[in-house]
Amino acid sequence: MTTIQDVARKAHVGVATVSRVLNESGYVKAETRERILDAIRELNYTPNAVARNLYHRKTGIVALIVPEISHPYFAEFIDAAEAVLYGCGYQCMICNTKREQNYEAYYLDLLKQQRVDGIITGVHTLDIEQYRQIDRPIVALDRQLGSHIPCVAVNHEEGGRMAAEALIRSGCRKVLQVTGQSHVSTPSNRRHEVFEQVIRESGGECINYLSKWNRFSYSYHREAALEIAENYPDIDGFFSTDVITAAVLHAMKEKGRRCPEDFSAVAYDGTFVSRLPYPELTTIVQPISELAETCVDLLMKQIRGDVLSETNIRLNVIYRQGATTA
Amino acid sequence: MTTIQDVARKAHVGVATVSRVLNESGYVKAETRERILDAIRELNYTPNAVARNLYHRKTGIVALIVPEISHPYFAEFIDAAEAVLYGCGYQCMICNTKREQNYEAYYLDLLKQQRVDGIITGVHTLDIEQYRQIDRPIVALDRQLGSHIPCVAVNHEEGGRMAAEALIRSGCRKVLQVTGQSHVSTPSNRRHEVFEQVIRESGGECINYLSKWNRFSYSYHREAALEIAENYPDIDGFFSTDVITAAVLHAMKEKGRRCPEDFSAVAYDGTFVSRLPYPELTTIVQPISELAETCVDLLMKQIRGDVLSETNIRLNVIYRQGATTA
Repeated sequence: MTTIQDVARKAHVGVATVSRVLNESGYVKAETRERILDAIRELNYTPNAVARNLYHRKTGIVALIVPEISHPYFAEFIDAAEAVLYGCGYQCMICNTKREQNYEAYYLDLLKQQRVDGIITGVHTLDIEQYRQIDRPIVALDRQLGSHIPCVAVNHEEGGRMAAEALIRSGCRKVLQVTGQSHVSTPSNRRHEVFEQVIRESGGECINYLSKWNRFSYSYHREAALEIAENYPDIDGFFSTDVITAAVLHAMKEKGRRCPEDFSAVAYDGTFVSRLPYPELTTIVQPISELAETCVDLLMKQIRGDVLSETNIRLNVIYRQGATTA
Repeated sequence: MTTIQDVARKAHVGVATVSRVLNESGYVKAETRERILDAIRELNYTPNAVARNLYHRKTGIVALIVPEISHPYFAEFIDAAEAVLYGCGYQCMICNTKREQNYEAYYLDLLKQQRVDGIITGVHTLDIEQYRQIDRPIVALDRQLGSHIPCVAVNHEEGGRMAAEALIRSGCRKVLQVTGQSHVSTPSNRRHEVFEQVIRESGGECINYLSKWNRFSYSYHREAALEIAENYPDIDGFFSTDVITAAVLHAMKEKGRRCPEDFSAVAYDGTFVSRLPYPELTTIVQPISELAETCVDLLMKQIRGDVLSETNIRLNVIYRQGATTA
């Protein structure tokens, strides 16, 4: 395995200089710095994160807390976040909260006990008060945990508007959207408000079908899809996440309702699941890799003790035309 | 938060007795033990894993190494393994190897340095020799890493046979299967050998389409599916994983080839993806939760220093009839 000594030798510098570059501490001439980075790349050197973290009195571990690892949105987020964290010399601890409510408290405890250096959480079941008591690095993905905790999300207002406009362009007059629980404080609730508003302004009807709180398993989504197909066979437009939309297309087909002939559909998230159904889903894409990069970036700044200039980040969504809308 | 003192009070015993039950050390009367377990359940008590692991001189961390976190098979495996590990008082570290070859070596180093207590790996890019040098807890998921490392997999021979027989029952005479690289030592190669053999014995033709090594991303699967639909439009049977089969159904439809009218298909894995396409896929289901439980069980035994009576575990697959075969 390549060592820091190998890098130093190749770059014709001392180990201390390589260390300064790796730790971003102390002055290194730009030219020397470049030579060291070239050597790192050529030798495919992985800095010894453990040693580096010991030096900095850190664990080198970041915890990612999500409601369900196997939900495609969270799976793609973890996939991307793990890669960025690895690049920063951090290992990634993973926590599912779907089974037990006290998971979240348990991981906050790990953070308090300094067993992990920071937390990125896509979950929100505890009181905001419990977060307020912690003065350690936390970043929230698409959750509002109080003004002192940075929140990274997409521009859901824009996403809701794009979805509504796609259905209106397809001539929809009676649409159904699957909404989350409004008592969970998440920026994503805004997409449903804007969606409903834009549909109503166009003179259309908007039915809000309430999804059960924090339920992300496919068997639940499938059950919900069957219920929607059974109770609302006459809708001409549908809006939900990739997975639920795919399940609804399936359930509707079993009722003889074809998409896009009999109804149009717009999905949200843009995971690989939006590409699986036939026809392929029109989707509002969340830039999941950028969400992960931004979360890690804000967490690293907190770990380094930097002051955050912005704590409410909103990334743009992308409209991707599929074959489920006109 | 509930403490061990609360549990002791409720069960009318001392803290040391609760501790003996939690640590499975020392004698506790069956009746007392039951009372303590009841109290733990009623109070929803989470044992302080950190304290317990410090006591046992462990890190309390297990690393899961997979080629791609967001592939549904691995995502569902991680989801299940994390839950079982949590139940054993362990946190779960997660490692993607898709981006860099030296990831695997890096995590083996963490194990050697006792920064993690054990590894469950679904990856195999290093020489077996590198594994032979490590006398620490490792379990392999569906990979052969040498006789000293336990391997947990399904009975792939049976899976390959079931898939072939389903296609033969559907009248297929010219089938295509997507195979992995034969130089990767994995029990799952056996399913392709048996599949081909059973098809040939029935008088049918079997085309083996070679999948690129360790490629698990959907964009690659989609590309492969388009290539298959383009070059083999006249096959009447298809066999691959859930994700690839779903992608092939899609690509074939664009060529005007319908399933099951024009060709039959059997998928492998049984993740939620097998339920998304219309028609729903006939699938050979891997019991992913049981695979995870078995891996964790074998790892815990190694961590405790138990001698393993069996190191080659094969779980049964399940045939699930969908609408893509007769």
